[in-house]
Formats: sequence, structure tokens, C-alpha cells
Amino acid sequence: MHKTILRNPGPTPVPGQVQQAMNHGMISHRGGEFKTLFKETANRLKPLFGTEQDVFIITGSGTSALETAIANTIFPGDEVVVVTVGDFGDRFAAICETYGAVVHKLEIKWGKACTEEELTECLKRFNHIKAVIATYNETSTGVLNPVEQLAKAVHTHSDALFIVDGVSCIGGVDAKMDEWGIDILVTGSQKALMLPPGLAFVSVSEKAWKIIENNQAPAYYLDLLSYRKSYEKHMTPNTPAVSLIYGLQEVCRLIEEEGFDQTVKRHEIMKKMVRQAIRALGLPLLTNDEDASPTVTAISEPADLSIEKLRTHLKQTYHIDFAGGQGKLKGKIMRFGHMGYCFPGDVLEAVSLIECGLKDLNHQFEYGAGVKAAQEVYLEYV
Amino acid sequence: MHKTILRNPGPTPVPGQVQQAMNHGMISHRGGEFKTLFKETANRLKPLFGTEQDVFIITGSGTSALETAIANTIFPGDEVVVVTVGDFGDRFAAICETYGAVVHKLEIKWGKACTEEELTECLKRFNHIKAVIATYNETSTGVLNPVEQLAKAVHTHSDALFIVDGVSCIGGVDAKMDEWGIDILVTGSQKALMLPPGLAFVSVSEKAWKIIENNQAPAYYLDLLSYRKSYEKHMTPNTPAVSLIYGLQEVCRLIEEEGFDQTVKRHEIMKKMVRQAIRALGLPLLTNDEDASPTVTAISEPADLSIEKLRTHLKQTYHIDFAGGQGKLKGKIMRFGHMGYCFPGDVLEAVSLIECGLKDLNHQFEYGAGVKAAQEVYLEYV
Repeated sequence: MHKTILRNPGPTPVPGQVQQAMNHGMISHRGGEFKTLFKETANRLKPLFGTEQDVFIITGSGTSALETAIANTIFPGDEVVVVTVGDFGDRFAAICETYGAVVHKLEIKWGKACTEEELTECLKRFNHIKAVIATYNETSTGVLNPVEQLAKAVHTHSDALFIVDGVSCIGGVDAKMDEWGIDILVTGSQKALMLPPGLAFVSVSEKAWKIIENNQAPAYYLDLLSYRKSYEKHMTPNTPAVSLIYGLQEVCRLIEEEGFDQTVKRHEIMKKMVRQAIRALGLPLLTNDEDASPTVTAISEPADLSIEKLRTHLKQTYHIDFAGGQGKLKGKIMRFGHMGYCFPGDVLEAVSLIECGLKDLNHQFEYGAGVKAAQEVYLEYV
Repeated sequence: MHKTILRNPGPTPVPGQVQQAMNHGMISHRGGEFKTLFKETANRLKPLFGTEQDVFIITGSGTSALETAIANTIFPGDEVVVVTVGDFGDRFAAICETYGAVVHKLEIKWGKACTEEELTECLKRFNHIKAVIATYNETSTGVLNPVEQLAKAVHTHSDALFIVDGVSCIGGVDAKMDEWGIDILVTGSQKALMLPPGLAFVSVSEKAWKIIENNQAPAYYLDLLSYRKSYEKHMTPNTPAVSLIYGLQEVCRLIEEEGFDQTVKRHEIMKKMVRQAIRALGLPLLTNDEDASPTVTAISEPADLSIEKLRTHLKQTYHIDFAGGQGKLKGKIMRFGHMGYCFPGDVLEAVSLIECGLKDLNHQFEYGAGVKAAQEVYLEYV
């Protein structure tokens, strides 16, 4: 017997209380009990999105929410700018292409965020951009884009929609959809929201609704107009993953109990703990401090160690599950997830085990330095 | 405190063992543990579909699977025949229209099944039908279409694909996809498969793959080619609802333990029990015996009783949850679900409570006759 320690950037650990809430006996999704559950839950997502708009619940993975954003707003021939800083930016671009958009990719070196200036320069080159699309938190590289600044660039230099993939950060970082001017913000259940995968969330600005109301692209399951219509009746258009919505209700309660400001602060603390620890161990970080994500940290390969060997060794020996790289970083980085139901103690455990793994592989480093560095960061905040 | 008795046609009750299996700690959907889970599970769905083809797992509701079938095969301008015997047939037609198909509806009176002759007559009127689409079990009316015969009509009189919605029956009735010649068969998790909603399943014939490989319609999340590619690696293209797949593994074990032939027989017995009981209570059945579904029974409104009043009374007083009518049968029928984790004892309980409700409403009927009639059917098989 062993306990798996899930430290990848999603799915993330599910709290026992949420697991228990999901065990609720099955109910009809068209009855009064469901409507009460829905009413008590959907509204509570608004602070996490920073919006007064409704947040729609789709049964599907995060990708279904990305597709929802595109299928409802982009028609063949529309020009879009996709800011891509990693694999998930590329995925968003691929979805746009699937819907016949003319895609202008603003490709940033993997490991770096996109700046307001870079986006401004890009937007100046085009006249008829229907939407600018960006990733808030790039899971593949551990980069948090400055979406507030990117929104400023979009609205200063175009009248495009600003569509944001918040899959691997919403619920763990601050988001101010209305204030910043995000037109569509989407996320998934299995990251900072502490649920199993299976739900996706979408919120839409007034400006985006005007385009969606004239949508012609084929979409049935992902048709936002049907979600809006059902929402008014406290339901979803198709059968939702009822158990996960029971879990979501408990997730909202847990975040409210901690206080969302504190949740955000905890993620900031864990980010710093991980980064200081990795530095103290002499391992390179893919991303600089300014661009670094509060939910996932990418550790690069040092000259004298196979990072993939370390990762598989940690999994096999200590049952701790970090993610490898994806896309063009496959085999070249190890990703350390620290979001959702993850606390400073979990970071200390994970860093300790990384130290054990490094020692097993006869890697030269200062034993104990990683844990000590993480502890020091933590103690500043206690 | 009360116990809700879920007797609607989906979501259906979830067995304790399945609930427990879904409580498995979260795992990465790209790691070895998931691949083993997937390998051990996906193959076991084949007997329920009656196919040697792979059965793909989509995270979404049944509707997402219906849309998958259409999005991957139907292009704008394609002519399709949609056999519609109720609300879900109409939904399938609406999805085809969303994808630009020219839809010829073969509309059968609600409460009746479509016969081989009716479909043959219809097919003779057209020359270029790309696909014939039918519902195996129409949830809104409690009708089971004779899909084996319908398949015969399709293949004798056209070279069209035969696409079948098996959402509310697969796992509770016999299906022989390969033998009968069904090209795409889809179902959902929350009906006879005893799971919470959130998974959908699709299997595809060789003939359909040839069309899918040339698919041009926009589909990303529902793109079957990406499901096929991932299946070979024992994965799904996007993050799947991992907990539900743990539940599915246990569902497969439970059905194998009972023996699928016995599962099918149990549904047949429950169908007969319900029908004989409702008759003995003097309430009209919407459907004749020949067309009746083994998973859901529609009870029509008698002259001297409001069926909606009975249904809401049963819910409020006895916490037993039957479904009302949908579409044009809204307010006119009550639907009794008897599928999945439902056994003859559950039918006896439900019939007893219907008797209590009828008595409360001062309806004239032979008290005890319903339970007795159901018992008599059951005893023939014990």
C-alpha cells in the first residue's frame, strides 16, 4: 500500500469534504432540489471571476470551455490574435483554426509572459481583429500573463473581444473580469477549484453577448444562448454532472471559509516557497520571478542531471506525482503543481522528497537547503 | 430527514460500491495509473454495445455524444432522415439542423415505435441520404424502437450510415451494433449504466470511420479522430472526468457479476411488473406492450385524475421522484424509470407508494391490486 502525492498541475487533490459532498444520493436535474443546489452554487463563483455576470456551468473538460468561447463568437474568416506563451496557447489557436478563423499568433518564447508593449505592437499591425485570445496561466510553462495589462492593450488599440483561458488559475489568483475588461473568461474544475475534472465554467460580458446573439457557427452542446436561457431557470440545458455540482457547492463553502483573499495569498506564498527551495537546491527555474505562476512552477534540467529521470524516480520510489513537460518542453522540465487543496506543509513535503530523490541519484547539492529555504519564506507570513 | 426515492428515467440511483469507487484519490490523467484504469475499463463496454469496435469515453452529457455523432459525419447540405418518435428524436433532428443538414423527419405518433415498413417507405422517397438517425429508447415516451429491423431497412434501401441514440437503454437492453449494422451507437452514464451524469460513450463502425476521416465540420472537443488517436495510448484527448471512470470500472464489475444476460432479463421483468401493476390500478399506459421500453414506462392521464397532481403529491408526501412529461406531453404523463440500479423490490415499493398517493387523492381503484399484479409477474421468474 502507498499514498500517492499528487503534485502535478491538475487534476489536483480533492478535499475529503468535497469527496463526501459528491457522495450525495443522485437527484433529478430537473427537480426542485437541483434548482436549489444550482441557485446556491452558481452565484458564488462570481467573486472568483471578479464579475457581476453569470457564470455558466458546462459538463466537460477545460477544453470544452475554450471551444465554447470560440464556437459562439468566431465565424469563418474572422481575424483573431492569439497570444501564445506555451502549449495551451497553441491549443486555443488550433481551436480558432478549427472554426475557420484567420489566426495571427503572437508567439512569445516559452517560459516568458507576454507584455502589454508586445501585444500593442502586434495589434498595431492589424485593422480588423474580432478577438484577442490569451492564456491567463500557462500550465505548460508556469507563466502567469499580466492579463490586466493585456486587456488595456486590447481595448486601447482595437475594439476586439478579449477572451481569456483561466483554466489553471481561477480560484487561486485574483481575477477582475469586469474591472479589467475581459469579455469571456473560462476555467475548469480540476485545478485551483479542487474538484475532479468534469466541469468547465464560462462567463461572458455584455459586449460579447451582442456577438453571441448573432452566432451562426454550428454549436449545440456548447451553445451559450441555451446556457443563458436555462440559467434563468436555475438549470443547465443538458444533463449536468450532478455529483460534481454538489462538490462545487462545498468548494465554494471552503473558499468562503478561508476567505478568497487569503486563498490568493496562500498561493502567492507557495509560489515563493517553491521558487526559493528550487533555487537553494541549485536547480534552474524556467521562468523569472516576475512572470512566475502562483499555481505551477516549471523546473528546468540542470547540466548534470536528467530531469525526466528524477521525475520518474520520485514517482516510483516516493509515489509523488510531478508532471513532465509537454509540447516542445517534453522531457526537458518537471512541473510542480501547488494549487487548490495544497498548503505550505504540502510544499515542504514535496521539497523534502525532491531532496531525497536528488540524493538517491547522487546529485551534488546542499542537503536540507531546499526545505530550509521554503520554511524561511513560510515563516515570514505566519 | 427523508430518503429520496429516485424513479425518474435518469439520473438513476448510483450503487454504494460505485459511489465508493468514485472516492478514489485524484490521479493524473496522463500517468500510468490512469492508463491502467482506462485499459481495464474501456474494453469492458464492448459487450454492452455488441461490438468489437472501441468504445470512446467523452466527458459530457448524452447530448454531447449525439452531437459527436453528427459533427463528425454530417456536412452542410447533407441529407439525413431522422426517425423521431418523441422529444429526443426531435433533439437529434435539431442537432442535424445546427450542422446544416437537410433534415427529412420521419415523425411517428408519440407513444408508438417506428416500424421497418414505415422507414422503408420513407427511404424510397429519397436518393441521396447520408445518414439515417434513430433513437433506440425514447425516454420521453417509454418506447423502444426495433433498431434491428430499422437497420435492415436502412441497409436494404440505401447506403446511408445508421446512427443510433442509445442513451436511455444501453446497459439495460440487448444491443448488437456489429451484427445489426449500426454505424454509430452512443449512450450516456446516468441511465442504465448506474453512474452520475458526466460521461458519454460513442462507438463507430469501419464504414463510419471512412466518412469521419474526411470530416470538415468544425469540432475540436468532440473530434472523434482525436479520441481514436488517444485511445491507442489508453487515454482521452482532453482531461476526462477521472472519478466517473473509476465509477465506471466498478459498474463494469457489477454488471459482469450479475451477468449481462441477467441484467437484460431483469429489465424485461421490471417492465412487465410495472405495466401489469399500472393496468391493475386502472391507469392508462401511453404505449402498447410491443413498443414498450424495458427501462421507462409512461403512464397517461386517466379521465378522472390530474396526473401532474399525483406526481407532485407523491414527491411531496412520499419523496418518490417520478418524471413528468416533456415536449408536447408536458403535464400529460408521468414517467416511471426502472433501469440501472433498480430491482424488482424497488418496483414493488414504487407501486405501493403510487397506491398510497391514489388513495390520498380519493381516486377510485382496487387497493392492493397494483402490488399484487407486479408480484405475480415477479414470481413467475423467481
